[in-house]
Amino acid sequence: MTNPLIDDRLVDLVLWDVVDAARLTDLPRFQDHSRETFELYLGSCRRLAREVLFPTYREMDEAGAQLVDGRVKLHPKMRDAYAQIRELGVIAATRPEAVGGASLPATIATMAHAYLQAGNLSPTALCGLTTGAAHLIEAFGDEALKETFALPMYEGRWTGTMALTEPQAGSSLADITARATLAADGTYRIEGSKIFISGGDQDVTENVVHLTLARIDGAPPGTRGISLFAVPRLRPEGGALVDNDVEVSGLIHKIGWRALPSLALAYGSRGDCHGWLVGEPHRGLPQMFQMMNEARLMIGVQGAATASVAYHESLAYARERTQGRALTTRDPASPPVPLVEHADVRRMLLRQKAIVDGSLCLAAVTARLADDAEHGDARAQLLLDLLTPVTKSFPAEQGYESNVLALQIHGGYGYSSEYLPEAWLRDQKLNSIHEGTTGIQGLDLLGRKVVAKGGAALAAFSAAVREDLDRSALDVGGVRAALDRVGALTASLGARGLSGDVAGMLAHSADYLALTSIVVIAWMHVKLTNAAAGDAPFAQGLRQSARYWLATEVPRIEHLAKLCESAESSYVEMQDDWF
Amino acid sequence: MTNPLIDDRLVDLVLWDVVDAARLTDLPRFQDHSRETFELYLGSCRRLAREVLFPTYREMDEAGAQLVDGRVKLHPKMRDAYAQIRELGVIAATRPEAVGGASLPATIATMAHAYLQAGNLSPTALCGLTTGAAHLIEAFGDEALKETFALPMYEGRWTGTMALTEPQAGSSLADITARATLAADGTYRIEGSKIFISGGDQDVTENVVHLTLARIDGAPPGTRGISLFAVPRLRPEGGALVDNDVEVSGLIHKIGWRALPSLALAYGSRGDCHGWLVGEPHRGLPQMFQMMNEARLMIGVQGAATASVAYHESLAYARERTQGRALTTRDPASPPVPLVEHADVRRMLLRQKAIVDGSLCLAAVTARLADDAEHGDARAQLLLDLLTPVTKSFPAEQGYESNVLALQIHGGYGYSSEYLPEAWLRDQKLNSIHEGTTGIQGLDLLGRKVVAKGGAALAAFSAAVREDLDRSALDVGGVRAALDRVGALTASLGARGLSGDVAGMLAHSADYLALTSIVVIAWMHVKLTNAAAGDAPFAQGLRQSARYWLATEVPRIEHLAKLCESAESSYVEMQDDWF
Repeated sequence: MTNPLIDDRLVDLVLWDVVDAARLTDLPRFQDHSRETFELYLGSCRRLAREVLFPTYREMDEAGAQLVDGRVKLHPKMRDAYAQIRELGVIAATRPEAVGGASLPATIATMAHAYLQAGNLSPTALCGLTTGAAHLIEAFGDEALKETFALPMYEGRWTGTMALTEPQAGSSLADITARATLAADGTYRIEGSKIFISGGDQDVTENVVHLTLARIDGAPPGTRGISLFAVPRLRPEGGALVDNDVEVSGLIHKIGWRALPSLALAYGSRGDCHGWLVGEPHRGLPQMFQMMNEARLMIGVQGAATASVAYHESLAYARERTQGRALTTRDPASPPVPLVEHADVRRMLLRQKAIVDGSLCLAAVTARLADDAEHGDARAQLLLDLLTPVTKSFPAEQGYESNVLALQIHGGYGYSSEYLPEAWLRDQKLNSIHEGTTGIQGLDLLGRKVVAKGGAALAAFSAAVREDLDRSALDVGGVRAALDRVGALTASLGARGLSGDVAGMLAHSADYLALTSIVVIAWMHVKLTNAAAGDAPFAQGLRQSARYWLATEVPRIEHLAKLCESAESSYVEMQDDWF
Repeated sequence: MTNPLIDDRLVDLVLWDVVDAARLTDLPRFQDHSRETFELYLGSCRRLAREVLFPTYREMDEAGAQLVDGRVKLHPKMRDAYAQIRELGVIAATRPEAVGGASLPATIATMAHAYLQAGNLSPTALCGLTTGAAHLIEAFGDEALKETFALPMYEGRWTGTMALTEPQAGSSLADITARATLAADGTYRIEGSKIFISGGDQDVTENVVHLTLARIDGAPPGTRGISLFAVPRLRPEGGALVDNDVEVSGLIHKIGWRALPSLALAYGSRGDCHGWLVGEPHRGLPQMFQMMNEARLMIGVQGAATASVAYHESLAYARERTQGRALTTRDPASPPVPLVEHADVRRMLLRQKAIVDGSLCLAAVTARLADDAEHGDARAQLLLDLLTPVTKSFPAEQGYESNVLALQIHGGYGYSSEYLPEAWLRDQKLNSIHEGTTGIQGLDLLGRKVVAKGGAALAAFSAAVREDLDRSALDVGGVRAALDRVGALTASLGARGLSGDVAGMLAHSADYLALTSIVVIAWMHVKLTNAAAGDAPFAQGLRQSARYWLATEVPRIEHLAKLCESAESSYVEMQDDWF
């Protein structure tokens, strides 16, 4: 049996029931759509993922990308994979017709693209990066910039990158030093180094546009002096494309996503790198952050998709591979049973399922909030902001754990590259690092999101969860108590921060993120089981998965909350020379 | 600074204080030794690991082993690495002088060899496998077999393997089908396939001896019909070594331990594969199991060593790499601080340290029990049996988590193969699979070990822990309560098993293993802090690490115990078609 990548039944339930995506056509931007056009796009993505992308995954992972004479050569099959994703209109799917898009809701695009990601991350991410880069220009650039840079990207003739990170600064964007000097023609001359630039060069389209953070000469230090520039590899000049002095200075040997090269770039080593200011000077970081939710949501879906494809692989293996007997079978001549019959293997499978179902449902819920927020729904915006760090980090962290279980179920075979779980394990690990590490997500959640607007976001969250709990046929007393606990804990941590003890408030931000994630995923399981009535096997499975999560994960919250509340101080007080 | 692989201060404390290894010379087998000879061996291993093995690790990992014309070619540097380990007497270190050994206690050898494993697993494991194979013959074979096979292995002229697993049987040894037919000359003709045979061929010594499980024709089915054979690649015949019809049928592309090839072997495809019966017919499995503790203890040390070297790498990186500022620093012009200053990075480092220190201490404690047990100490044997599943699986599972944290601390750099943490992460994953998966360790602990001899082992364990708790200056109330909880829980689960509900008893064996491991590691931290008095930075660090474990891990036990006790049934009841 071929790997389905993602369970269609789950996606259908989530879309048409849990987030009621058919009603998205009530929103002005989506009024020309119908459930039929949504399903058409979803179906096309499913087919492309299964028939085109997944069959190329293994060979792309094995061969990776090459750096030859300063230029990147992608895997030969990347050209066709990219062309077919482009053909489907994936790059501008959610953008308006005015820029060549299809005005699809983020909700639909997110779940449709999840299949592409599960099928083969690298070509899909090449398109996703291009969307993000073009969107920055669409949102903040003037008409000329849109015409010159955004349209070719939305069209897929050019690709785009996000060029933030510098070797010396890492996650600390305040410390970036790339320089921009105003030139007589009104553009800027860019000079500096960037690192970990995914898709920073390729040979499947004629050009790449780097959305680059740099400091205009004389800008204030820190994050308030960073501006955003469009810096193409080839710049349009006199009707032609000429070299723009952005060199590939290194190819990083990533352990996963191997067909999407991560590069070090050198800007302006010949003093001839032109950059076009996007938006306001010194507003580069806030502008970037307006798009960050989008990027972080995409990471979350990538995490969910990567966990999903591995889950299905290990499920098929556990059903097919016979080994050993029931604990109570004494007759060695009885035939061996499939792995799935062993309780501990079912535990590993059900844990994966609980993580995957919860993550995919969360991706849809968050995307639906993004659609509503874009239509001016303030409550949706509050919830979106609150959920983003969880949506980004839970699939990365627990998705990784889930990928480990998929490998473990394969036993010794899983430890070899003849089987795929080890490849997805490598892919998944990136998601806890890029677009803000898990540590940063914890600080964002506790330090900003839950305390924003006097706790309004958290109140909206609690109300939304309660609404679903009230409709649940499960025993949700534990979730209710956990929700109360999160509220009280957050109030007490917020008060600590306000009293000046910010370090104490944030000491256990990792535990706070973990416990909030458990509640959020419990909420997703409640939503799923509310939506799936009846005794069909699929509904039974969802209930079992919800029961598992409520029984094994939700009770962990109390301990984590105590650690946060007490600001348990072992690592806080640990001194460098004590290690 | 070079990576120290393992902290010498920790090993010295553990050896000379926690397990009082100098007193091992009181035991008859070690009476010719002294603390000085122990330290001499330890020092030699430390130097070899740091100066010879570790510098070859990266290139061996990158190049791996090759299969050329049916023979394995190891990495060119393997020859020298192997020669130097052999030279040091590692292979027969713990064996008596009669077989060419140095009669070193397991305690000393274990901690000394941990450095070799941390330096470079593959050449070290080639020797460790040889020790295991030779020891099987020493223990169960007759004089002729010892002379022919064990001595060349102990000498290091030949290497050895453990050939148990077959493609169709995996972990289920009851299902192995390799056949042994008695021949006129008193030896057997072997026919069958084995898989995942580490070191199954190599080009650094002239011969390899496979300690092979097979069924003598007419043997009963299941585990009671399996016999053990010595099956060399080249058999001694007429004063020469002639081909013995064991072919390499495949090289498995392992994701780690890449310089130690894992092979598929085909025995007797020409009908000319001679095997020598080791020990009694049909007693192969019990004989193998008598050695299994040794192998499982070795896996545990490998896990601890692999976590240790990565911990030290990420500690050095966190001290050296500057990034960002304290949460309370508002001035962007202030210099960035080293990563180690960030609370969440210290959390990741302290968690690694707590896992590594606990695992290494546990390895020494278990090895000391093995030395005592070998001298007839029945209580030591009970404790050794009880602790073995924990010693094998905790460093594999939490060591892996620790390896993930080492990568995470390296950020984007950690996601590249230019840095070493990703390589150790790959190495570590094997330890939860080979020599009995973690699932099997859980069943072994709960289904056999803790209920053995009417609970005598558990009683001995509790008494031993209490003795150390009574001497502790830490707040160990939580550990005391946890210990009581384990006792009561085990009694209740044992009663359930006796009443016939074996499946219910064992449903949460994974959680039982996890909670017992938390208590065992807490015990190790109590031992370490009991031994390290004073306010020196090293002692402070141990106390902090103990505080961390007691505060963050020990309280988790209650929840895990409840899951076991209630036989929480989500995955137990999960049906195949509900997935």
